[in-house]
Amino acid sequence: MSAGDDARFMALALSLGARGLGRVWPNPAVGCVIVQAGRIVGRGWTAPGGRPHAEPQALAQAGEAGRGATAYVSLEPCSHHGITPPCAEALAAAGVARVVTALEDPDPRVAGRGHAMLRAAGIEVTTGVLAESAWRAHRGFLLNRTKGRPAVTLKLASSFDGRIATATGESRWITGPEARHIVHAMRARHDAVMVGGGTARADDPDLTVRGMGATHQPVRVVCSRRLDLPRDGRLAVTARAVPVWLCHGPDADPGRRAAWNGLGARTIEVAVGPGGQLDPGSILQALGAAGLTRVFCEGGGSLAASLLSAGLVDELVGFTAGLALGAEGRPALGVLGLDRLAEAPRFRLIETGAVGNDVLHRWERA
Amino acid sequence: MSAGDDARFMALALSLGARGLGRVWPNPAVGCVIVQAGRIVGRGWTAPGGRPHAEPQALAQAGEAGRGATAYVSLEPCSHHGITPPCAEALAAAGVARVVTALEDPDPRVAGRGHAMLRAAGIEVTTGVLAESAWRAHRGFLLNRTKGRPAVTLKLASSFDGRIATATGESRWITGPEARHIVHAMRARHDAVMVGGGTARADDPDLTVRGMGATHQPVRVVCSRRLDLPRDGRLAVTARAVPVWLCHGPDADPGRRAAWNGLGARTIEVAVGPGGQLDPGSILQALGAAGLTRVFCEGGGSLAASLLSAGLVDELVGFTAGLALGAEGRPALGVLGLDRLAEAPRFRLIETGAVGNDVLHRWERA
Ligand SMILES: NC(=O)c1ccc[n+]([C@@H]2O[C@H](COP(=O)([O-])OP(=O)(O)OC[C@H]3O[C@@H](n4cnc5c(N)ncnc54)[C@H](OP(=O)(O)O)[C@@H]3O)[C@@H](O)[C@H]2O)c1
Ligand SMILES: NC(=O)c1ccc[n+]([C@@H]2O[C@H](COP(=O)([O-])OP(=O)(O)OC[C@H]3O[C@@H](n4cnc5c(N)ncnc54)[C@H](OP(=O)(O)O)[C@@H]3O)[C@@H](O)[C@H]2O)c1
Repeated sequence: MSAGDDARFMALALSLGARGLGRVWPNPAVGCVIVQAGRIVGRGWTAPGGRPHAEPQALAQAGEAGRGATAYVSLEPCSHHGITPPCAEALAAAGVARVVTALEDPDPRVAGRGHAMLRAAGIEVTTGVLAESAWRAHRGFLLNRTKGRPAVTLKLASSFDGRIATATGESRWITGPEARHIVHAMRARHDAVMVGGGTARADDPDLTVRGMGATHQPVRVVCSRRLDLPRDGRLAVTARAVPVWLCHGPDADPGRRAAWNGLGARTIEVAVGPGGQLDPGSILQALGAAGLTRVFCEGGGSLAASLLSAGLVDELVGFTAGLALGAEGRPALGVLGLDRLAEAPRFRLIETGAVGNDVLHRWERA
Repeated sequence: MSAGDDARFMALALSLGARGLGRVWPNPAVGCVIVQAGRIVGRGWTAPGGRPHAEPQALAQAGEAGRGATAYVSLEPCSHHGITPPCAEALAAAGVARVVTALEDPDPRVAGRGHAMLRAAGIEVTTGVLAESAWRAHRGFLLNRTKGRPAVTLKLASSFDGRIATATGESRWITGPEARHIVHAMRARHDAVMVGGGTARADDPDLTVRGMGATHQPVRVVCSRRLDLPRDGRLAVTARAVPVWLCHGPDADPGRRAAWNGLGARTIEVAVGPGGQLDPGSILQALGAAGLTRVFCEGGGSLAASLLSAGLVDELVGFTAGLALGAEGRPALGVLGLDRLAEAPRFRLIETGAVGNDVLHRWERA
């Protein structure tokens, strides 16, 4: 099989894996393709909830055709005995002749042992195929395992002069229905949607995925030091149906915590930073420890600025609308406190295109 | 010849015509293609300075092959005797059998007479082919003829949060070299580059086209009510080499006017609006009367806001860079004074794409 074929099948494994994004945490969203004599005989991806893994599903589909086949897996197969036997063992048992992977799994329980187990079983192993794409696809899982925090996507939707509302606070609508629809699709591919207390107080948002025909809902995270949040709003009322996690400071009133717990919300204590706001690093460590791998932050401007200042934004999604609101409009982003242009957080463009009458641009931390 | 062929040849005529943009004012940048039995036998476009016109050049190239041919012209051929005989007459004299045009010329000296002259000579005439593209291509000329003002392209280059400098004024560089190169190419396709007095005072800009290998330079326009502009800056020093036109109010000091005239600049008196700034409509009427058809405004934020508020921006060119400067950074656009979101100037997206690490987006007035 040529390197071109390897890349082609790995791209397919990656796109299958992506189907699980947002619904497999704390597990990685892995994809697997089994190829016998150039023909695809099995496909699998991590099931919602994280199990079964991609490989046994693909092997089951391949059946006898798996014998002597090549398996493409977007991440190193697991090697540890958990609820189910390790995938490396399953691949060997199915008689696969060759395994191609994109990345080594940094999980200390795997970390090369999956590859070693395969080689020990006499299987030919090729690694590092489409490693960069795989790194991007698994960024949330990898960051959680290596840094203890989820990957953060920050969404900023604004007028073309960077405003999110008029001086009087009017903001419906700046971007068009197509952009708003894509935002829902993006929410669905993340484990959680996060906003600051200011947005929760001002907008009484829902933060659910709508219009996707999907039932899966990401966790809704709100950051508010003193839990100064309305307990009769949409989040409160729906907290039993769709998870609400509230990050708060050590000084949050215990009565408020209890009241929110009573409504069905989970309260998570995090540290307060030198500026008196919840420390963004501490927020993300707590969310990582709770299992989240991908967080979609939708603002507001203050929380967004604090994440950017701390260098904690991995991907930036901008929507630019075709209208001007002027310098008196409300800024999309709060104060960053930069002393020099050289200190500005910088991003590398990965995609741009039209979405309805808006411009979508995606950036990755530079 | 099919409608598809007509559109294809007209698209070519339009792209030939575009070669003249920025260097043919006050004339339109017209393109012409002569087709004999499906084969292109002549091409022409308005020469720098506006003469010769596209048609006689294409006819000269076609020679005898023009007899019985079809001529595609991106604007109605002229019908009046000026320095040269009318193009409609030239087409008839060359024995062209059919003329296809995109638009009627609103110039009262033409206004359908060109088409009529062709028909009277027994030539088959088809009009309105790619009319919308032609309208866009000739917008500057058409606006000048119908409304007395040039078309205005406004460029805004900013960080992704809509800022053009840090709080301390650092702004080099926000966009990358590729974006800056494209800006020079855009300048070259306009008759004039325009800025407000604030930019002239703060940046001592050149406003010339550089790095294009072209010798043609657009006129440089600065708007300053009292001509409060440095007379030892780059614009002053180079005013004899590349035209500098200064729009000023009736109350500008006559001594300053004389001094600028002495440096080689042209001074143009315009009205002052209710807010005490030069009236943007009056500025554009004056520039239109002086023959300009396409003006490229590069800011700053105050002049840009005043043009947008007055509804005088026809095309908007945005460059969005991959860095954040925060709410304390300087806004790309000044105060618009909107009371309602519904009053915000709106634009229709016509193009977006990556330019180096920046996003280019082009919009047209909605
Ligand atoms: N167009 C859009 O895309 C969009 C998106 C979102 C929001 N918005 C608008 O933005 C406005 C709210 O913006 P905002 O900036 O006031 O609100 P925000 O960023 O949502 O919330 C700021 C609040 O979050 C809490 N917080 C906790 N940790 C923080 C941290 N590390 N950094 C910053 N804040 C932290 C603080 O409240 P506590 O005191 O409770 O801790 C703080 O006052 C609303 O008007 C909303 O409509 C627009
Ligand atoms: N990143 C970029 O793309 C970019 C581009 C351009 C400028 N800039 C920056 O922008 C800053 C200057 O911005 P600015 O807003 O102060 O300057 P500006 O818009 O260039 O100039 C404003 C001045 O222009 C004159 N003016 C005349 N008619 C006007 C009208 N109808 N509306 C508004 N102004 C009119 C007024 O000065 P008089 O009193 O003299 O009449 C006014 O103070 C500089 O720091 C420059 O570096 C950045």
